[in-house]
Amino acid sequence: MQLLKVYDFIAQELEGVRDIFERELLCDVPAIGDMIDQVGKFRGKMLRPALVLLAGKACGKVKPAHRIIAAVTEMVHMATLIHDDVLDEAEHRRRGRTINALHGNEAAVILGDMFISHAFHLCSSLDSQLASRLIAATTNTVCEGELMQLYYRGFYELTEEKYLDIISRKTASLIASCCYLGAKAAEATEADCQALETYGWNAGMAFQMMDDITDLIGEEEAAGKTLGTDLLKEKMTLPVIHLLGVCEKRERAKWQQRLRVQNSDDLQRIIHRLQERGSITYARRRAGEFIQTAQQAVPKTLKHDTREMLLDLASSILD
Amino acid sequence: MQLLKVYDFIAQELEGVRDIFERELLCDVPAIGDMIDQVGKFRGKMLRPALVLLAGKACGKVKPAHRIIAAVTEMVHMATLIHDDVLDEAEHRRRGRTINALHGNEAAVILGDMFISHAFHLCSSLDSQLASRLIAATTNTVCEGELMQLYYRGFYELTEEKYLDIISRKTASLIASCCYLGAKAAEATEADCQALETYGWNAGMAFQMMDDITDLIGEEEAAGKTLGTDLLKEKMTLPVIHLLGVCEKRERAKWQQRLRVQNSDDLQRIIHRLQERGSITYARRRAGEFIQTAQQAVPKTLKHDTREMLLDLASSILD
Repeated sequence: MQLLKVYDFIAQELEGVRDIFERELLCDVPAIGDMIDQVGKFRGKMLRPALVLLAGKACGKVKPAHRIIAAVTEMVHMATLIHDDVLDEAEHRRRGRTINALHGNEAAVILGDMFISHAFHLCSSLDSQLASRLIAATTNTVCEGELMQLYYRGFYELTEEKYLDIISRKTASLIASCCYLGAKAAEATEADCQALETYGWNAGMAFQMMDDITDLIGEEEAAGKTLGTDLLKEKMTLPVIHLLGVCEKRERAKWQQRLRVQNSDDLQRIIHRLQERGSITYARRRAGEFIQTAQQAVPKTLKHDTREMLLDLASSILD
Repeated sequence: MQLLKVYDFIAQELEGVRDIFERELLCDVPAIGDMIDQVGKFRGKMLRPALVLLAGKACGKVKPAHRIIAAVTEMVHMATLIHDDVLDEAEHRRRGRTINALHGNEAAVILGDMFISHAFHLCSSLDSQLASRLIAATTNTVCEGELMQLYYRGFYELTEEKYLDIISRKTASLIASCCYLGAKAAEATEADCQALETYGWNAGMAFQMMDDITDLIGEEEAAGKTLGTDLLKEKMTLPVIHLLGVCEKRERAKWQQRLRVQNSDDLQRIIHRLQERGSITYARRRAGEFIQTAQQAVPKTLKHDTREMLLDLASSILD
């Protein structure tokens, strides 16, 4: 219910963001237009635009630049979803089939490129280069995170520290930049911008951890995507790292073996064991710690009602 | 030999461009650094940076912004090569194996994204948004061209007009922007900027046509890439469009059939027939016409020696 209040509060601005998003991607080639419409079905809560707008409201007033930056962050996010679905060979995403499932990997690769390109095109319509520069620095980092994640696939000795480094780059960095830029565009002090960046980074870390947990024990419909892909793709996430860490040597070897040779029976057995050994609980607890740090970072001097919403939004990540 | 003179003339500036390129892509993750180094082996004549610099010299002086823009255009080009190699399942590119061949499609997809991202990051270090905005508009267009090309794969009724539209978007648009931005950064008049844009666009059209011819009858070593992929991927190029156009109905049906079911014998038979029916000659002649238009577009008022080089560079595309 808290989350509904947050989205009500920014409903009108989010509508404006959607308009900008759609206008930017208008295309005179019908076949391409159809693919872009399909991507529209992947849209979820628009967390990144919501954070740009909330950070703006918390620090001052929402301006036209906020809506543009918000649309840019959503476009970048969509691009990563399109390419992620290629990497994960995923077939469904929210209310639609993935682009790779419908049109093949090749079209999905180029369509993802097109979303990145339009994101920067839209961003460079702003007067200042600041957002372009920060968004591009962030997408550099996101790509590093994705490449690291790929590099460490099937590496069962991955430490929690390395895992945190990867999700920091691939997920938290963009969410942090959303908050920073939202505050900056409202002409907040550099201290407040950085405080909100810290909020966003920590919320983003928790968000990815919870997303990884959902991939193990969530419900496909609620998550809006094919689950279990992390295990199948040998992508190490926090619960698995925890399990391997608490196991004795011999048991660890057994699980490493089982993680490698996978069928759906193995998958269920691994998930059962993760719950039994408290690995899901551990990951949830760690996510909770990041949410606490996020909430502590929000300056007490921000507008009261919006400040509360930022705190609520962070809490909602744990649900 | 003419071409050597051109590259001698801008050798020092090109060295500067290479430095900026490499500095922008420095990465603290060793595995990623290795992949970036591998992409360095794909570097060819650096046509796009050369055009930025030449256009600049022809209209005034080469400034730091020229080197940055030049590096950006090369980075965008490299990104398209990395993703093209995924789409074409190519194994070799100039002096190295492709990223997809070495590290898989997934790494190649993300590494291509990383090059696009760094291109915009570098571009947004300039004072003005103008280059960012134009480059992004151009990459939007490049993606459209690539998507159209994909959409029309195996469509043997493709007209010459549609083919020209596709190569205009996927290749000529970026080369046109290189010339426009090179002139603009040298503070040329808008008329001169646009004249050079026209030069670049026409040169780019011819360049893609010759590239398509090379894919049919070139030598793999000189071309620096796996040849014959266009036919194998059912990508329609001008010689094939010509052949199907001059055939009688029954012969056309036979070739359309043969274009669909392909082995290396079919391939040789098609190439032989393209030569016999003058389809290669026709495509070459059309490329020659674009080069002529390119050369006519170069303003007579530009600096004499650089003007000559722009004309020579255009001529060299036909060799």
